[in-house]
Amino acid sequence: MLPIRRAIRDMAGYVPGFQPKDEKAWIKLNTNENPYPPSPRVREAILAEVGGTGESLRKYPDAASAAARDEAARLYGFDPSWVIMANGSDELLNNLIRAFAGEGEEIAYVHPSYSYYSTLAEIQGARVKTFGLIPGRWELDGFPARYVGKLFFLTTPNAPLGFACPLAFIEELAGRVDGMLVVDEAYADFADENALELVRKHENVVVTRTLSKSYSLAGMRLGLAIARPEVIAALNKIRDHYNLDRLAQVAAVAALRDQEYFRACVRRIRETRDWFSTELRVIGYGVIPSSGNYVFATPPDRNGKRVYEALYARRILVRHFSDPALVHGLRITIGTPEEMEKTLEALQEIG
Amino acid sequence: MLPIRRAIRDMAGYVPGFQPKDEKAWIKLNTNENPYPPSPRVREAILAEVGGTGESLRKYPDAASAAARDEAARLYGFDPSWVIMANGSDELLNNLIRAFAGEGEEIAYVHPSYSYYSTLAEIQGARVKTFGLIPGRWELDGFPARYVGKLFFLTTPNAPLGFACPLAFIEELAGRVDGMLVVDEAYADFADENALELVRKHENVVVTRTLSKSYSLAGMRLGLAIARPEVIAALNKIRDHYNLDRLAQVAAVAALRDQEYFRACVRRIRETRDWFSTELRVIGYGVIPSSGNYVFATPPDRNGKRVYEALYARRILVRHFSDPALVHGLRITIGTPEEMEKTLEALQEIG
Repeated sequence: MLPIRRAIRDMAGYVPGFQPKDEKAWIKLNTNENPYPPSPRVREAILAEVGGTGESLRKYPDAASAAARDEAARLYGFDPSWVIMANGSDELLNNLIRAFAGEGEEIAYVHPSYSYYSTLAEIQGARVKTFGLIPGRWELDGFPARYVGKLFFLTTPNAPLGFACPLAFIEELAGRVDGMLVVDEAYADFADENALELVRKHENVVVTRTLSKSYSLAGMRLGLAIARPEVIAALNKIRDHYNLDRLAQVAAVAALRDQEYFRACVRRIRETRDWFSTELRVIGYGVIPSSGNYVFATPPDRNGKRVYEALYARRILVRHFSDPALVHGLRITIGTPEEMEKTLEALQEIG
Repeated sequence: MLPIRRAIRDMAGYVPGFQPKDEKAWIKLNTNENPYPPSPRVREAILAEVGGTGESLRKYPDAASAAARDEAARLYGFDPSWVIMANGSDELLNNLIRAFAGEGEEIAYVHPSYSYYSTLAEIQGARVKTFGLIPGRWELDGFPARYVGKLFFLTTPNAPLGFACPLAFIEELAGRVDGMLVVDEAYADFADENALELVRKHENVVVTRTLSKSYSLAGMRLGLAIARPEVIAALNKIRDHYNLDRLAQVAAVAALRDQEYFRACVRRIRETRDWFSTELRVIGYGVIPSSGNYVFATPPDRNGKRVYEALYARRILVRHFSDPALVHGLRITIGTPEEMEKTLEALQEIG
């Protein structure tokens, strides 16, 4: 038998959202992709880097991704030493666990949220605890006065439920966590506020972001984190030294720089989200007010699977989770107004 | 104090080869990049994927990198279940350690070779042992009859020294290693033979490859490994699920498919290498016969640093290592014939 570590042998592995092969045949609302293309500046930057022969691709990229890091630092108002770029924010979640939690040490997160934290902890051989929010209160069920685990992951806006945690709650949590509080803000660009100011105020707060959703760059794998320079330095030791290829780096710079396009794109999605949420309620769905580019919607009979399958049969792909806490509903990504109209029509037909 | 793991706090971090900002002003022979651009098919494939608007970049890439994996499997004559694609072969070296060596467990490698194995082990909190080759014999100094560590990394062709290990030596090693033997073949495309057949014969052999050197794609971060399906499955659990962006995936397919271009490019570099090695010997340098796209050359006075600095002053960048086992020589990447002519002239001037 091959000497594969027990932790790896025993784990199931994470299964990402289903990606149909014949994408054009579907209305694809299952992985929170942005329905609009990235800024035209992204395409221009990639073409400029590739040039007439692709010659630059023969050379290693900048190991520090300095141009992208500096652009992000400027945008968010931090010194570049507070910023790290990554091959998707998943790389950062992974490396945060490696930086702070050894084998047998504990991490925690809010359930339900992004179950991939659990997978990453399993790889490391770290233990996992989850805490649920007490309905109607900004309080975690059974959370100790001081949490002594190494990391606490808070997804806000919550995925898949869509609500954003108030800053006061996040700040209280930062004070009660002995280890690091990782505020996973994958969807924060679609929300009214974010936790960046808490990074300045509390040395144990890290914010992670992605360009996958709000910048329409899921296909380029771009994430970033903002934290104290000591934390960034630890993450820099752990990451592959050339973690971002040349085209991803120029894409990041171009996307972050074109704030006008970004804002227009986010505004459209928020408008569609708010309109779609209202319409869903009109047809009897329960909808949690969402601060992301998706909504968590519960059909009148609380049978999420039935509706998922009926939509699937109509080539509309949404996300259904088998987790008992989520089984009654559906996570529906906000697409274009046309896609959401068709989805609404289908939901009315399905009943 | 932030609760950064001791292993991370204590480690220095790996320092990749120096990349000058004004690249055009240098003859850059320090990081074993290919002097020729990638296949024209690579550029075409990237442009096709980007299309008229960059629209496809808004969507997640294929999590399995199936098209690239299948292309590599076909090329090397393995079932796709024996192949994994990665964001550079460094990702694979990292994840191999995570799959096989836990905190406090041991890995080993040949010294001198790629010191990054050591960095990766430090991140994991694994212990590191190194073994030197006994000069003139294919034997590791002090190597036990059975090596009980979890992983043994063998870089062949050796970097930075350039020699390739004979298959019989590699096979004997596979038999004596209880854990996994990782044959790091980053430079095997420039050699006469490789260890792929040993993957079929010995369940504990893994071969890693990169597209950085022989396929001129250092800028796109593309590596792959070939091993038993159980090993590949373990690596698949550990890697970020979307580890390769869309453009890297199409670049890999295009590069691997254009074998005619690949072979012509490798042949030119080998010819230049052999000619350059001969010329170096003529001017009194010691040169280890190289199977890579670089040579390890020792000046007559065995003062590698002096020559490095004199070349640097002439804007010719080569690699000098402070490691006492390497301090006497220089690793010089094979560039174009013109670049190597100029380097030779400079070396003659320097004396």
